[in-house]
Amino acid sequence: MASQPSPASPPIITLLTDFGTQDAYVAAMKGVILGLNPQAVLVDLSHEVPPQDIRAGALILAGAAPYFPPDTIHLAVVDPGVGSRRRGLAAKAGGQFWVGPDDGLFHLIFTRGAAPTIVSLENPAFFRPEVSATFHGRDIFAPVAAHLSLGVDLSRLGPIINDPVPLAVPTPRLTPKTIQGEVIYVDRFGNLVSNLKAPALEAWLGGGDLRLKVGPLTIRGLARTYAEKAPGEFLALIGSHGYLEIACAQDSAARRLGAGVGLPLEIFKK
Amino acid sequence: MASQPSPASPPIITLLTDFGTQDAYVAAMKGVILGLNPQAVLVDLSHEVPPQDIRAGALILAGAAPYFPPDTIHLAVVDPGVGSRRRGLAAKAGGQFWVGPDDGLFHLIFTRGAAPTIVSLENPAFFRPEVSATFHGRDIFAPVAAHLSLGVDLSRLGPIINDPVPLAVPTPRLTPKTIQGEVIYVDRFGNLVSNLKAPALEAWLGGGDLRLKVGPLTIRGLARTYAEKAPGEFLALIGSHGYLEIACAQDSAARRLGAGVGLPLEIFKK
Amino acid sequence: MASQPSPASPPIITLLTDFGTQDAYVAAMKGVILGLNPQAVLVDLSHEVPPQDIRAGALILAGAAPYFPPDTIHLAVVDPGVGSRRRGLAAKAGGQFWVGPDDGLFHLIFTRGAAPTIVSLENPAFFRPEVSATFHGRDIFAPVAAHLSLGVDLSRLGPIINDPVPLAVPTPRLTPKTIQGEVIYVDRFGNLVSNLKAPALEAWLGGGDLRLKVGPLTIRGLARTYAEKAPGEFLALIGSHGYLEIACAQDSAARRLGAGVGLPLEIFKK
Repeated sequence: MASQPSPASPPIITLLTDFGTQDAYVAAMKGVILGLNPQAVLVDLSHEVPPQDIRAGALILAGAAPYFPPDTIHLAVVDPGVGSRRRGLAAKAGGQFWVGPDDGLFHLIFTRGAAPTIVSLENPAFFRPEVSATFHGRDIFAPVAAHLSLGVDLSRLGPIINDPVPLAVPTPRLTPKTIQGEVIYVDRFGNLVSNLKAPALEAWLGGGDLRLKVGPLTIRGLARTYAEKAPGEFLALIGSHGYLEIACAQDSAARRLGAGVGLPLEIFKK
Repeated sequence: MASQPSPASPPIITLLTDFGTQDAYVAAMKGVILGLNPQAVLVDLSHEVPPQDIRAGALILAGAAPYFPPDTIHLAVVDPGVGSRRRGLAAKAGGQFWVGPDDGLFHLIFTRGAAPTIVSLENPAFFRPEVSATFHGRDIFAPVAAHLSLGVDLSRLGPIINDPVPLAVPTPRLTPKTIQGEVIYVDRFGNLVSNLKAPALEAWLGGGDLRLKVGPLTIRGLARTYAEKAPGEFLALIGSHGYLEIACAQDSAARRLGAGVGLPLEIFKK
Repeated sequence: MASQPSPASPPIITLLTDFGTQDAYVAAMKGVILGLNPQAVLVDLSHEVPPQDIRAGALILAGAAPYFPPDTIHLAVVDPGVGSRRRGLAAKAGGQFWVGPDDGLFHLIFTRGAAPTIVSLENPAFFRPEVSATFHGRDIFAPVAAHLSLGVDLSRLGPIINDPVPLAVPTPRLTPKTIQGEVIYVDRFGNLVSNLKAPALEAWLGGGDLRLKVGPLTIRGLARTYAEKAPGEFLALIGSHGYLEIACAQDSAARRLGAGVGLPLEIFKK
């Protein structure tokens, strides 16, 4: 690279929640963090995760986190089980830190690459003095993230666990003749993101091209960009997140097809 | 606490408005602040206050501010009277600073705890050189907040006032047999937040349990968490903001009841 | 001014996109920037530009940017042509820096004041190592903005160009008797922003007053503020962005008139 960052890097804490941005919830978490570590750099990852949709949260988190530098702390709270006996966790995985409820939100992170180090949050010295039953994001996860940013070691937060709660993500069915997948996420543009990752698709195609059936459509061939189709034409391409997606040039595929998460798609060799 | 913040703390300025995040308004305010104090740490408190809804703004502000450290500067603009003769103000209250229109937005802050110090913003040396008639957030309140973050004393901004505009918030009616309250806020999850604060309710119950009537529902007993009810069941609990709220487990109580702000509720001893 | 900023100013990078804030796209760009320059101060300008609406993006950008300090770097991505042969550019104009696609997004900036210096982004040493076909915001524009914030000179990014793509913005028709304009933007409050700038209108009026016809309405005279009309009354005024706008006191003019971008308006001397 042609230029160098300056040496002192303030710690980065990203925040992902399903809290939206109207209410006081996200700001309360930020206040708690800055009260403990005024040097922390806070970055909103998303607060528009559909309410209590752990899978959508996991996909957004896994889509953004790899672009952050090593040692970034990702604080993520999609937490329908708050106040129940579900554990809270902190972890190191992929060279970054992760803090939030143990409900599958970090599944895509923990099952990538080398085995993560995960601890159960059991040391109240790192929580707010009073912990509510309904808002662990503010009372447990925010202060834990702040303490991590101050250099506290994972081992001080609680005992190591090896059985984080997994997330049920539908996996595509590959046979020699077809792949059966489904839409697992719809983005802001109405692009339909499938559960089929680029490397698996490319290995299966073996250099050949594809034919894709989705709803009433048949799409032939993989496009490289949205711009190569005329406005209103449907296309299949590998999105910037690395999954096969169905798009409609300069329009919303989701709206045009009246379809979303769960829509099946089938792929054939052309 | 197990770790210490580093000594130098950059000043924090939070922003709360009803401007939304699509238009250039919030960013213009941030540009003005950073032009005066590039060291300021800006935190969005909320920009999704319903347009011109001073009461909702006041509730969100009072819900988030206590979690920020001492000396945080809260810049809040819900300002239907901009350009009229309403005053602008800056204040110190609760160990933090407050800047915005004198229209009731800070009422919940000014009526908590010790008496606030409030000044009327009358010294144009701390405004932008040109002040528009329609956007005091950018031209008066943002530069005043920036100057406060640089250490300017309240007394230099204008004369002390003792009659800030109050806010009409409906108060619950407590009798020995019932409490009559109402919904004053609906959050992102559709939880119906009432005007009844936890300490008043607990004192009235005297250790007993409650029965609550709201719309067609009767709810028996206070729940501690959302997770202790089956999905779709209604519950009453003390929310993280400290008010009694009506929720629906893993669903929106507001949508399920077709109700919102103003919905009456009545509480009985069980 | 009554107080001075401290000397060391971290570089400011603003971000404007049509990506929304739900998905991972904006956060990925921020991660890339902070990985290259951890000292950069990131400010969201807007991510709610209507999808692929270059004109709305250009108006929001031109509305906010002047309030930021000199040398601010504005990273803007509304990019329906991503992956096609459209160029990427970086520029210095009006004392600030600009990075994004060459599709008209910076037209209002480049045609103000002194001639800009614009380069075509052709040096991959300043891109991410792998450049996708669908997300140049993350792979080209974010790293280029980060390198600019580290002091890299424009000249190292690529060759100078003099023919940036212009933007078609409808211009008002002025005759001695009337001005014919149209609505070019609707803001969060439903205010209808026209294409008529204050200086042109004032010169044409020559100190006189106006009569304005828009849809079924006739509005007489320019108001100075929203507050001088009774709730529900329509008014015409110069908005904080410097354009003539049609508003409805404490209501949405757009909703009340059922109208938006493209609505014609006609101005007469009273």
